[in-house]
Amino acid sequence: MTTEELVQQIHKKQSFLCIGLDTDLEKIPNHLLEEEDPIFAFNKAIIDATHHLCVAYKPNIAFYEAYGIKGWQALEKTIKYLNVNHPEIFTIADAKRGDIGNTSTRYAKAFFEDLEFDSITIAPYMGKDSVEPFLAFENKHTILLALTSNQGAYDYQTKMIDGKELYKTVLETSQSYENAKNLMYVVGATKASFLTEIRELIPNSFLLVPGVGAQGGSLEEVCKYGMNNQVGLLINSSRGIIYASNNQDFAEAAAESAKYIQVKMAGELGKLK
Amino acid sequence: MTTEELVQQIHKKQSFLCIGLDTDLEKIPNHLLEEEDPIFAFNKAIIDATHHLCVAYKPNIAFYEAYGIKGWQALEKTIKYLNVNHPEIFTIADAKRGDIGNTSTRYAKAFFEDLEFDSITIAPYMGKDSVEPFLAFENKHTILLALTSNQGAYDYQTKMIDGKELYKTVLETSQSYENAKNLMYVVGATKASFLTEIRELIPNSFLLVPGVGAQGGSLEEVCKYGMNNQVGLLINSSRGIIYASNNQDFAEAAAESAKYIQVKMAGELGKLK
Repeated sequence: MTTEELVQQIHKKQSFLCIGLDTDLEKIPNHLLEEEDPIFAFNKAIIDATHHLCVAYKPNIAFYEAYGIKGWQALEKTIKYLNVNHPEIFTIADAKRGDIGNTSTRYAKAFFEDLEFDSITIAPYMGKDSVEPFLAFENKHTILLALTSNQGAYDYQTKMIDGKELYKTVLETSQSYENAKNLMYVVGATKASFLTEIRELIPNSFLLVPGVGAQGGSLEEVCKYGMNNQVGLLINSSRGIIYASNNQDFAEAAAESAKYIQVKMAGELGKLK
Repeated sequence: MTTEELVQQIHKKQSFLCIGLDTDLEKIPNHLLEEEDPIFAFNKAIIDATHHLCVAYKPNIAFYEAYGIKGWQALEKTIKYLNVNHPEIFTIADAKRGDIGNTSTRYAKAFFEDLEFDSITIAPYMGKDSVEPFLAFENKHTILLALTSNQGAYDYQTKMIDGKELYKTVLETSQSYENAKNLMYVVGATKASFLTEIRELIPNSFLLVPGVGAQGGSLEEVCKYGMNNQVGLLINSSRGIIYASNNQDFAEAAAESAKYIQVKMAGELGKLK
């Protein structure tokens, strides 16, 4: 999917919501455990109930990998279901991968070509030649971890290098990578005030903002400091939507939670004009 | 496996060689492609031929993930084969994972409990709460990326923070993490001269050194600067061993290449006394 198509979808749906499919057998409704593939059954129900309210889904790969081969089967079914039934949806493999060049190419092929995800999250620590293999894929997007929303972000990401925080060095340096136009960035919403400075460095890039909801960010704050005139934001919510209820009505409850956010987002998009 | 058991194995086998199982269908001998599971058939033959010459195997997970479910099945068979037939071998999941706390716990369970690897490689960028979930597993080892052997290492890892390179900040900071005794570190052998300073910061930790061979490091240099009195080194070779030949004799050729390194390692261990 091109960035332009993503922006079109945002305006059409009046939403820049990304729903995190962090599907956990210990948290999904009990009645689904009788299904042949409970993880996929859950995801399908959530997608059916919410796809008109969001523009992206983001399965965190750890949740699937934790169930071994069964988890991978559920992931394959989920991404195929999305690509066949909702090709307008932007899909994000939240994998946080990163390895030396020829190995990164293997991860890129696995997620971009075989699974046909539109994008993948990548850790920046190993630098240029670990990231560029992902950037080489046309109309695929590499979402680099810049500033994460967890406490450990302060261990290294906010440390100063030549008078500038490490995460800003990541933002600047990565903009010189080949095919940098295919870069997006993860920026934790718990630091909304940082967004002004981030926007000075990367005015045009899309930001994937986790942590609105369970991790404590504020939608209005993020939009105020992070939105650009191409919107430039995907805001993720996982648990607050997919686990809004763990009864028979879980899908309807998820749709309600998503609708609540979507309406707010429509308001924020209105301010753009 | 405890660190003490690993050190015992090193002395018993007179080797601190780790063999990287970066198994690639495009590089393995053609006759294996007729097997039901060519990846496992290749790994089994390599293990059968080399297990007495090395103390560790390190499958890079990207190579398996690239083949989807078939790849995961081959990985599961490989680790099970090692754990059943060669329980004295130290196993490393070269996964370079790292995520927020509860997600890291899922990766830890997948690799430590379900697949029963002895250790996993982890990227440090997200800090303490992304690493500690791995450290919580007793007699399991978390191998943190510090200084990698690729060109991109110079993008961030060697940048100065308060007069000290980022990778040294990673070494120091991580030593204060809970259960830091379960930490080992990846240190690229192409920078053997850096090992003196690294040993000042972490005199006792085991180092996993990739890049001897294909990536250009020197065994003698690494031992001179990196060895401690508990050996403290695992030196990895992947392509130089497993692809020593791609004919019918590939396993024997792998054993010859491994033997060549093992003999050199025995010489280096002799210098310890």
